[in-house]
Amino acid sequence: MMKRRTFIGGAGSLAVLSAIPSFAKQAILNKQYTVQQVIDLILAEGKLSPIPNTVDTIKAGSAGNTVKGIVTTMFATTDVIEQANKLNANFIIAHEPTFYNHVDDKQLVINNPVVLQKLALLDKYGITVWRFHDYLHSFKPDFVGYGFLQKTNWLQYYKGGGFTFIKPAQTLQDTVTHLKKSLGITHVRVVGNLSQPCQRITIIPGAAGGKMQISAAVADKADVLIVGEVSEWETAEFMRDANAQGRKMALIILGHSLSEEPGMEYFATWLKPKLEGVPVTHIASGEPFKWV
Amino acid sequence: MMKRRTFIGGAGSLAVLSAIPSFAKQAILNKQYTVQQVIDLILAEGKLSPIPNTVDTIKAGSAGNTVKGIVTTMFATTDVIEQANKLNANFIIAHEPTFYNHVDDKQLVINNPVVLQKLALLDKYGITVWRFHDYLHSFKPDFVGYGFLQKTNWLQYYKGGGFTFIKPAQTLQDTVTHLKKSLGITHVRVVGNLSQPCQRITIIPGAAGGKMQISAAVADKADVLIVGEVSEWETAEFMRDANAQGRKMALIILGHSLSEEPGMEYFATWLKPKLEGVPVTHIASGEPFKWV
Repeated sequence: MMKRRTFIGGAGSLAVLSAIPSFAKQAILNKQYTVQQVIDLILAEGKLSPIPNTVDTIKAGSAGNTVKGIVTTMFATTDVIEQANKLNANFIIAHEPTFYNHVDDKQLVINNPVVLQKLALLDKYGITVWRFHDYLHSFKPDFVGYGFLQKTNWLQYYKGGGFTFIKPAQTLQDTVTHLKKSLGITHVRVVGNLSQPCQRITIIPGAAGGKMQISAAVADKADVLIVGEVSEWETAEFMRDANAQGRKMALIILGHSLSEEPGMEYFATWLKPKLEGVPVTHIASGEPFKWV
Repeated sequence: MMKRRTFIGGAGSLAVLSAIPSFAKQAILNKQYTVQQVIDLILAEGKLSPIPNTVDTIKAGSAGNTVKGIVTTMFATTDVIEQANKLNANFIIAHEPTFYNHVDDKQLVINNPVVLQKLALLDKYGITVWRFHDYLHSFKPDFVGYGFLQKTNWLQYYKGGGFTFIKPAQTLQDTVTHLKKSLGITHVRVVGNLSQPCQRITIIPGAAGGKMQISAAVADKADVLIVGEVSEWETAEFMRDANAQGRKMALIILGHSLSEEPGMEYFATWLKPKLEGVPVTHIASGEPFKWV
């Protein structure tokens, strides 16, 4: 990125460029990036320190490929891959695993035909997939939380630091209704009394695990803890007992993908102006479930 | 148990006892068991080998306590504890953790007020809780699978061994409807086409993890995999891709507690005749969620 800024002559040149027709601008900005250069640019622009043993590695394709277009998403599902190919995008940046386990071990299940067919599809389209998990969470503030607050229009209540904040009181039912509407979610699971007031909110999108979820709810004295996914024997049972003991502490489970999608959407808007000449498109991978 | 059989003089004496009024029978059968003796009896009667480093330990109370009554359940929730106390039962045998993590570490979350209040309630009522997880699954066949098949009336199709079997074809929708009705479940989450046929069924109640769930579905070529709980980035996304690739392979997620409850219910019917004089009651702990 530093190089590119030099190349186009700093911010002043951008104003000049905006007066030039887009096809000509495209030619002027005809800088090509490899996958690795895009990754390096993200880390440099985000001032992100290298994370040892990160799961943020290339899952298919190659770091040396020239990037024609970028798709950001939660999961590089088969459907997202097909859509990326239609957009002529050959680099998918996905927050979560591509091959159904945290470290994307393709041999975890022996001769998994779904893995093999997915690899073949990516190879056929020449698409590279990079996971962008640990680094996304290492932005300050965490882009996942920030994107969530922006999408729910709760950024106005956020004071920085952790993701517990105070907002005007609503009932749990009204809080659920607001989250479903603002995040485009059709179903959620809840523990707690739907008429209890929710003013002190703790958000932990994704699946942070019982220890982190319960610790945050206890330490921050949350009225409601909003998460993506739980292990049922951990946070869900903790909240069931908390309510049976008379505590006014609720849990809203949004679904893993839907809860973190705003983070990747926000990331796309952050990345786009840093890569003029390379189309960046966010595709929501949505949730995998039918609720029956 | 062996001792008790000697004491009452073998099966012949039971026929004689049946002619005696119940209060007198109670006196004759007035054998008292400690918690440890009940645990030993279960392992001996089940011909279960000791499991090193098992999580099946006493979570509250004491092995030396005299058992007045037993409650079996999935989770020793606050509500189940209250019900047990009303039944004058002071020994809860629970399949899953009591303190919100797999090893029941009460300090995992520092000064967790819900843990402290639950411990105080158990102490006030003098109730001992024993987890019965690893041993329940070590029955052959696994009592959890067996109870599930009995409750769903699918035992007729079970040929022993693993829990994949063939049954007359139904659509996925009809399979879901049957499961909801027979198991008393109001909502499930599904991946797959609701009109696809389901004949080859793999059941893995509980939360066995992505590796086991996906491996079973792949190796057994399941039409439908029926589980209690998944990690969304594992089995759910595998099934989403499998379907996008045109495979007719579905996933039904029943909920952790509801999927294994029939196993503990079956266990109660197995235990009851081995402990005459000690009331054994199964209390369904049910699911923690409201679906909104």
